Amino acid sequence: MVQIAPVADAGVTDIYVAGKIYGFSAATWVLMAATGSPGDLASDYASEIDHDKEIVTPYYASYLLDRYDVHVEYTASKNCAYFRFHFPRGLPANLFVTSRGSAKYQVVSPTAFESTDDSSGVRTYLYTEFSKALLPPATFQPSKTAAGLLPSGEQPTGLTFTGDSHQDVLEARMGFSYIDAAQAKQNLRAQIPNWNFTAAKTQARSEWNDALSRIFVKGGGSVKQQTIFYTALYRSLQYMKDITEGDRYFGPYDHSVHQAAGRHFYIEDNLWDTYRSRHPLQTIIEPERQDDILRSYVIMYEQSGWMPHFPYMQGDLAYMIGNHAAALFADSYFKGFRDFDLQKAYEGLRKNAFEATMLPDRRQGVSELEKFYFEKGYFPALAKGQKEFVPEVNPEMRRQAVSVTLETSYDDWNIAQLARALGKTADAAYFAQRALNYRNVFNPATGFMAPRASDGTFVADFDPKWSGGQAGRDYFTECNSLVYSFQVQHDVAGLITLMGGGDKFIARLDDLFNDGFDGQLKFVFLSQFPDSTGLMGQYPQGNEPAFHIPYLYNYAGQPWKTQKRVRAIMRAWFSDEPLGIPGDDDNGAMSSWYVFSAMGFYPVSPGRPIYDIGSPIFNDIRINLGHGKFFRIVARQGSARNKYIQSAELNGQSLDHPWISHKDIAQGGFLIFHMGPNPNKQWGSKPSAAPPGRD
Amino acid sequence: MVQIAPVADAGVTDIYVAGKIYGFSAATWVLMAATGSPGDLASDYASEIDHDKEIVTPYYASYLLDRYDVHVEYTASKNCAYFRFHFPRGLPANLFVTSRGSAKYQVVSPTAFESTDDSSGVRTYLYTEFSKALLPPATFQPSKTAAGLLPSGEQPTGLTFTGDSHQDVLEARMGFSYIDAAQAKQNLRAQIPNWNFTAAKTQARSEWNDALSRIFVKGGGSVKQQTIFYTALYRSLQYMKDITEGDRYFGPYDHSVHQAAGRHFYIEDNLWDTYRSRHPLQTIIEPERQDDILRSYVIMYEQSGWMPHFPYMQGDLAYMIGNHAAALFADSYFKGFRDFDLQKAYEGLRKNAFEATMLPDRRQGVSELEKFYFEKGYFPALAKGQKEFVPEVNPEMRRQAVSVTLETSYDDWNIAQLARALGKTADAAYFAQRALNYRNVFNPATGFMAPRASDGTFVADFDPKWSGGQAGRDYFTECNSLVYSFQVQHDVAGLITLMGGGDKFIARLDDLFNDGFDGQLKFVFLSQFPDSTGLMGQYPQGNEPAFHIPYLYNYAGQPWKTQKRVRAIMRAWFSDEPLGIPGDDDNGAMSSWYVFSAMGFYPVSPGRPIYDIGSPIFNDIRINLGHGKFFRIVARQGSARNKYIQSAELNGQSLDHPWISHKDIAQGGFLIFHMGPNPNKQWGSKPSAAPPGRD
Repeated sequence: MVQIAPVADAGVTDIYVAGKIYGFSAATWVLMAATGSPGDLASDYASEIDHDKEIVTPYYASYLLDRYDVHVEYTASKNCAYFRFHFPRGLPANLFVTSRGSAKYQVVSPTAFESTDDSSGVRTYLYTEFSKALLPPATFQPSKTAAGLLPSGEQPTGLTFTGDSHQDVLEARMGFSYIDAAQAKQNLRAQIPNWNFTAAKTQARSEWNDALSRIFVKGGGSVKQQTIFYTALYRSLQYMKDITEGDRYFGPYDHSVHQAAGRHFYIEDNLWDTYRSRHPLQTIIEPERQDDILRSYVIMYEQSGWMPHFPYMQGDLAYMIGNHAAALFADSYFKGFRDFDLQKAYEGLRKNAFEATMLPDRRQGVSELEKFYFEKGYFPALAKGQKEFVPEVNPEMRRQAVSVTLETSYDDWNIAQLARALGKTADAAYFAQRALNYRNVFNPATGFMAPRASDGTFVADFDPKWSGGQAGRDYFTECNSLVYSFQVQHDVAGLITLMGGGDKFIARLDDLFNDGFDGQLKFVFLSQFPDSTGLMGQYPQGNEPAFHIPYLYNYAGQPWKTQKRVRAIMRAWFSDEPLGIPGDDDNGAMSSWYVFSAMGFYPVSPGRPIYDIGSPIFNDIRINLGHGKFFRIVARQGSARNKYIQSAELNGQSLDHPWISHKDIAQGGFLIFHMGPNPNKQWGSKPSAAPPGRD
Repeated sequence: MVQIAPVADAGVTDIYVAGKIYGFSAATWVLMAATGSPGDLASDYASEIDHDKEIVTPYYASYLLDRYDVHVEYTASKNCAYFRFHFPRGLPANLFVTSRGSAKYQVVSPTAFESTDDSSGVRTYLYTEFSKALLPPATFQPSKTAAGLLPSGEQPTGLTFTGDSHQDVLEARMGFSYIDAAQAKQNLRAQIPNWNFTAAKTQARSEWNDALSRIFVKGGGSVKQQTIFYTALYRSLQYMKDITEGDRYFGPYDHSVHQAAGRHFYIEDNLWDTYRSRHPLQTIIEPERQDDILRSYVIMYEQSGWMPHFPYMQGDLAYMIGNHAAALFADSYFKGFRDFDLQKAYEGLRKNAFEATMLPDRRQGVSELEKFYFEKGYFPALAKGQKEFVPEVNPEMRRQAVSVTLETSYDDWNIAQLARALGKTADAAYFAQRALNYRNVFNPATGFMAPRASDGTFVADFDPKWSGGQAGRDYFTECNSLVYSFQVQHDVAGLITLMGGGDKFIARLDDLFNDGFDGQLKFVFLSQFPDSTGLMGQYPQGNEPAFHIPYLYNYAGQPWKTQKRVRAIMRAWFSDEPLGIPGDDDNGAMSSWYVFSAMGFYPVSPGRPIYDIGSPIFNDIRINLGHGKFFRIVARQGSARNKYIQSAELNGQSLDHPWISHKDIAQGGFLIFHMGPNPNKQWGSKPSAAPPGRD
C-alpha cells in the first residue's frame, strides 16, 4: 500500500490562478459559494483562493475563498461531485450554480434541481441536491470577470440560492449522466448514497490509492521527485474515460443508449499523442482495461464506418495526422491483449489506410494527394512559390507533407505486423513496403527529412529549422525538420544507415540538443513553433514528436548518453511547482513519458513489444501486475549523481543490452541496475546490443 | 557570518544547456578543454557537461565535461579568471582558447599569450598564462556546433594548445583589462599572484561571503527559498560594474584613461529596469558604493553632454524610454547620499528634460513631438490609420506615446523634488505641474490610460489589452494598457481618484490578476507581448512595469491583498530550478524585486524614501548596515500558511500603517510582524494609514 502523494497544482497555462477546482472532470458544471451579494460572486472564480492553504489530492480538495472566508471542500466519485461549504457564522450563505453554456434548469424541490446542457454538442444531465432548503433561486446575471475565465463567447448563466444567515455548513452533491435525468439521479444515489462527506472522501481515497499503488517507488529520488512522479501517474490514469453508467452507455457514434453487458465503454483519446506513451503505460499498469478499450475502438468503427483517432463524445475530432489506431492495436496485440475482434479492427485500420484522407485535421475520403501517395510513396509538398490547388486541404493546417509521410510509414508498419499475424501475406508485404516510404522524403544531399514536390524534386531553399511557415505546417506537424528527421520509430536501423552510420547519427542527436536560434530571439522561434516548448537546444520536450528521441542513442552504441539526456530533461523540465510540466499534458501523454522515464525505460516504437532503457531516478520500483505478480526494478547506489548504468541483471542473468521486452515485465521479474557517477561507455554499446530496430 | 548558498543555475533562456560557465563576466572570452582531437572540441560547449555533478557558487564552479572525462574547476577575482583542468591520465591534454569575435593573439612565451578583442566595440586586453609549457599553438577551425551557440554571425576563432599525454592537471589564469596589455598582466599579478588555486578560491569565497552576508535570513522559509533568496541577492550584487583598475579607469565616454584618485568608476546599467528595485536595494545593502555610482553618472554627463540611461562601455545605449536618472538621483539624495555634485547632476537631468528626445530607442535632440509635449502635456499618438510622418521616430520601436507620457510624468516629479531641494522654486513648480501630465492620457470614458492623437481626441477603437501592435509599441512599452494604467508611481492617490475611488481601484487590481486572453491561445498573446511572461491573469511578473503593482492594494485600504499577491507571485514564479525566474533579470532588477519582496517590503515610488510593506517569507531577517548597525525584521509565527500580517511593531511602537521609511531602516531598528493564517483585514486599512501617495 502506498501513501497517496499530494498532487501538485501544475499545468502550462495559468492554472495556478485560473484554477481548476470548481468542477469535476466529467462535466462542465461550476458551483460556487460566497457570502457576499450575488452580483459579486463571479469574481471569486479564481483569484480569491488562498493557494497557500489549499489541499489538492486526487480524491479531495480543500480551498479557502478568502474574500468571504468561505472554506470549500470537494470530493468526487466516478460520476458525481460532493461539495461541503463552511460559511462564516452570522453571514448570509449564498450559492451560485452555473454552467458554461446555455443550460436549462428545473427546480424540483426546495433542496434540488435538475438541469441539462447542450453546449458541448452532447446533452449532459445533472441532478443537484442541497443538504438544506434554500430560498427560491433567482437567475444569475453574469459579470465580466466570470466571462473572462470562460471560453470565448460563452456566458455563465445559472441560479443563485440564498440561504439563511445561521447555517454555517451547507453541502451539495451532484450526479452526472450522458444517458438521462433519471440516470443522473440514480448515479448519485448509487455512488454518494448518504449525506456523509467523510464516507465519500474515504471511498474516493481508497479508489485512487488502489490505482496509484500499481507503482511503488522508494529511495534515490527526492520527496519532490516522488511528488512529480505520482502527480504524473495520477494524470496518466485519467484517460480514457469509462462512460459506462449502470451497465449502460450512451453511444456517441450512433447517439443511442446501449447495454454494456458487463464490459466498459471508453472514450476521450488523442491517439496522435497517446499512442506513444500513455497507451503503452496502460498495458503495464492497468492491463485489465486494455481489451475493453480496444473493443470500444472497434465499436466506434462499426458505428461510424471509420477507425477513429480522436474519439470524443462529439465524434472523431478532426485533429492532427496519422492512422495511429494501428499503433494502439499492434502494440496491444503483440503484448498479448486478444479479447477483441482483431479481424474487425484490422478491417477498420485497412479501410482508413486506403479510403481516408491523410490530410491534417480532416476526416473524409481520399483526395488526389492520397492517390499520389499510393503511387509514388510520399505525400507531395507544394513547390516553392506554388499556391495550394487541392480543395480538400485545410487552408490553415496545410499539407504537413513530410510529417504525413513519416507518420504514415510508421502506421503502415504496424498494419503490416497485424496483417502478418492474421496470415494476410499479401497485405503484410504491401504494408511492409509502404513502411519504408520514410526513405522517400530523406534528402541525402542535406541529411534531413525534407519536402518533395510532385515532380520528385526536393523543394528549393528548404531550411530544416525555419522552413514551413507557422508551426511548420507546409511540411511538418508543429515541429521542424530537426525534430522530424528522427521520426522513424519503427526502423531506427534504417534511419541510422540513411544518416551515414552510427557516429554521424550520434553527432546529429548531439546537434539537436546543442542547436540554437541562429541569433534570433527565442520568442521569434516560439512564435513560429509555439508547441516547441521545453527546449533543450532545439529538442522540444514540450511536444510529443520529441519523446522517443533521447532514447535513440541506445541504437548507436552510446546508451550512456540516453541516460544522461533523460536525466537532464527530467531535472530541467519537470517539477512540483505550479508550472510543473513543459507543455500540454495531452491526455496524459506528457505525464506518461515522465512515469516511464522515471522508472528507467520507454517504448521508442509502440507495436514492437520492447522498452528502451534510460536511467531510473528511484532505487526501488515495484510494479504491481495484479494476481500477486510484481516487476521490480532496483537501482543500486542510484542517486542524482549516480545516474549512469554500470551493469545490469535481469532475473539473475547479466543484461548487456539497453532494452527489455514487454514479456520480461508482464510475467513478473527482477531487474537490477548497478549505478555510478561516471558513464560506463561500454555497457550496451556493442552493435549486437542495440534494440531491435527493424523487423 | 552566513554560509554562502549554492546559486541555482537559472535564467529564462536555455542557460541550463547553453551554459554560462566558460568565461567570466567582465569579458567575452571562452576557454575550453578536452582530450579529443581539436576539431571535435567545439561540441563540448554545452551539452557535454554533466549537470548533475556541477557545483555552481558565486566564487567557484566545478564541471565534468563528460565526453572526455575532463574535470574543470573555475574561480575568479575582480578582473581575473583561474581555471584548473583535470585530464584523464594517458590521454593527450588539449586546450582550445577562443573569443567570440575577431581577436588577435600573440604568443609571448611557451606558457603565455596576450590577446586583444575589438568585437564588442571596445578594445579589451587579456593576458593568459598556463601552468606548464604546451606544444606550439595552431589556429582553430570553427565547427558548426560552436558557431550555433555564439551570437549570430560571429565565428569562434582561437588557438589550440596541445599538451603532452602525461600531465593530468593543467591550470590557466587570465588577467583582463580595458586599459592596456600591461594592466591586464598587472591585474593578474595583483589579484592572482601565485599558482595556488585553493588560495584564489578562498579569497573569492571570502569576498562573496562578505557581500552576501549583508543580509541574513533564517526560519519560516524553506531551504529552497533561502537558495532562491541568496541566488537573487548574488545577481543583484553583480551590477553596476566597478571598472577601476589600479586606481585608474578607462573612460568609456571620452575614450581615455583617467586617474580614479581613490574613488571608483561604475558602468553597465539599465536604468529603465534598475531604478525600480536594484538601485533602491543598493542604498540599503551597499550604501558605501552609492556616492561613487552617482559621481560616475555625473562624470558621464560631463564627458558626453547627456545624462545617460543605459551607460555601457560602448556609450549610452539607445534603449527604452524615460529620463530615469532622475529617479536614481532623487531616490539617493532623499535617502541621504550627498557626496556628489548635485548641481551638476540637476543640470544634466534638466538638460535631458528639455533638450533630449523622449522617443523610444533614440539618443538625440528634440523632435516636433517633444515640442508638442511641452505645449500640450502629452506625447501624441498617431490617429487610427495615420501613417508615421515624424522622421525621428524609430520605425520599429514607434512612439510608445502613452508610456512616454506616463514615465516622463514620474521622472519630472523626481526632478521637481530635486529642484525644490536646490531652492529652484520656479523649476520645482514647473516640473511638479509636468508630473501631473499622466492625467492627460487617462480616458475617463473607459477608465484606462489610452493613446491620444494630436487633435486631443482619444484614438478610436482602442482596446486596452490588444491595441498597439507588436509589444504595444504604438502606444506602450512592452506591456499593454491593463498594466500601464497603474504606471503612476509618484501619485497613487491621484490615480485612485481618476479610477473612481478605492473600491473601484481594488476591483481594477483584482481584474488585472484575473483577466485572460479573451479566448485566444496564450501564445497568440505572447507573440504580441513576448515580454509579458510570468503571467498571473494579465499581470506580468516577468516585466518591470508590473513590479510595483501588487503593492498598490496598500494605498486603497487592503494591505492583506498585497500580502496575498506577493506571496502568490513568489510561490508561482520563482524557484531554484534551472528556469528559476519568470523573465529577464535585467541587470538584477528582477532579482532585486525578489530580495525586497522576500524581506517583506518594496519601494513603489523611488524618489520618495519609503517602502511599502508586503509579507516577509523568512522569520528573522537581519540587514547589516555596517558600522555595527542592523535592521532586523522578525515575523513571528510566519510560514507558508501564516502569510498575513496581524499586527506590527517598529522599535517597540505599534506600527499601524503598511509602510516604513528609509530612515527607519538606515538608522537601524527592529520591526516585528505578528503573522497568521487569515488576513487581518483591518490592519493598515484606514485611509490615514495609506502610504504617502502624493507630495
